[in-house]
Amino acid sequence: MSDFNLLIEELHRFRDARDWKQFHTTKDLALALSIEAAELNELFLWKTVEESEKVDKAKLKEELADVFAYALMLAGKHNLDVKEIVLDKICRNNEKYPVEKSKGSAKKYNEL
Amino acid sequence: MSDFNLLIEELHRFRDARDWKQFHTTKDLALALSIEAAELNELFLWKTVEESEKVDKAKLKEELADVFAYALMLAGKHNLDVKEIVLDKICRNNEKYPVEKSKGSAKKYNEL
Amino acid sequence: MSDFNLLIEELHRFRDARDWKQFHTTKDLALALSIEAAELNELFLWKTVEESEKVDKAKLKEELADVFAYALMLAGKHNLDVKEIVLDKICRNNEKYPVEKSKGSAKKYNEL
Amino acid sequence: MSDFNLLIEELHRFRDARDWKQFHTTKDLALALSIEAAELNELFLWKTVEESEKVDKAKLKEELADVFAYALMLAGKHNLDVKEIVLDKICRNNEKYPVEKSKGSAKKYNEL
Repeated sequence: MSDFNLLIEELHRFRDARDWKQFHTTKDLALALSIEAAELNELFLWKTVEESEKVDKAKLKEELADVFAYALMLAGKHNLDVKEIVLDKICRNNEKYPVEKSKGSAKKYNEL
Repeated sequence: MSDFNLLIEELHRFRDARDWKQFHTTKDLALALSIEAAELNELFLWKTVEESEKVDKAKLKEELADVFAYALMLAGKHNLDVKEIVLDKICRNNEKYPVEKSKGSAKKYNEL
Repeated sequence: MSDFNLLIEELHRFRDARDWKQFHTTKDLALALSIEAAELNELFLWKTVEESEKVDKAKLKEELADVFAYALMLAGKHNLDVKEIVLDKICRNNEKYPVEKSKGSAKKYNEL
Repeated sequence: MSDFNLLIEELHRFRDARDWKQFHTTKDLALALSIEAAELNELFLWKTVEESEKVDKAKLKEELADVFAYALMLAGKHNLDVKEIVLDKICRNNEKYPVEKSKGSAKKYNEL
């Protein structure tokens, strides 16, 4: 079993022990992911770039784990293979952001 | 190598070919993650719960892949083991949300 | 003085008494706004549409006030006239969403 | 009529001409607000603090107007007086962040 599927199984075990599947609609899992992403960002609010690099590692782990948890549950709900979708996306981005045009530039593909 | 590390390596290869490491501060990777999470949520905006379950799978894959990409790059930047941090989080949540108190309830742990 | 400017003045008075202007970069005010928007959304997480309409009014007021506070401070920082920018936007949306094409449809302008 | 109410009336006129009230649940208005806040933040992604201050003013106006539009519609839906809720919040924050403790510090009230 892939690492992703192992984690999804653990997350489902946790969820099912609490009978929480009823709340885990696709729309609310996505909302939860977005809220956790905001909590992650709060670690860096009013901080400089340099201060942000020295973030409290325990807090970073916790907030990032929450983000992964909801992202994995969304993948699990729609039977998506995380490895496959990320590799596919890198492939498409290779086309959207050709090295010669995007090297050293932070511009979006539609501004290149 | 774990699936996570394989993906992080691919993401770094993509990033380094474009010389983008300079932009990938912790603060901006977190911001990018949050923006991608919002794009994922946009798939469900003005949609009912039922309509949201029938989301266009190609779009879901793409938006979720973007979320994973930035979450993985954050993990990579801080040498975090994704499997470990998610399992740790499940452990802590097992304590925060005891089965007997949280079964069938969507309340936050501090409202239980 | 407009209601907007009155509020911006009060927010600046609060800010300056604490010497917080140094933290209020455009980038971080926008980030703060986004984090407050997520806290507002958390009031509705795992809630049905119907439950969400019956949101605790005190909490709604508080979270929405935070959103307005950062939005107003961003407007203040860039000398934007809130009334003008919102009326301008309605104008542009009148063109993007012609009544005959968009009536009763939740589609985005580029999908109409 | 206050500036806020005038804008809310204009937003409602725009909405009702398109028969969009049916989509504007509290939960989805909050979600829309959060998505617009992310679009605002995207103007600053991969940008330094200094670059962010020189943001394209037309784009800033547009994204900030979208944020205000949804925040105002939420206020309108729940009959909230924007001036009152923001002044109330400043009042409460005056207590949460006493000048002597918070001067020059970006810490959250629960870390002071």
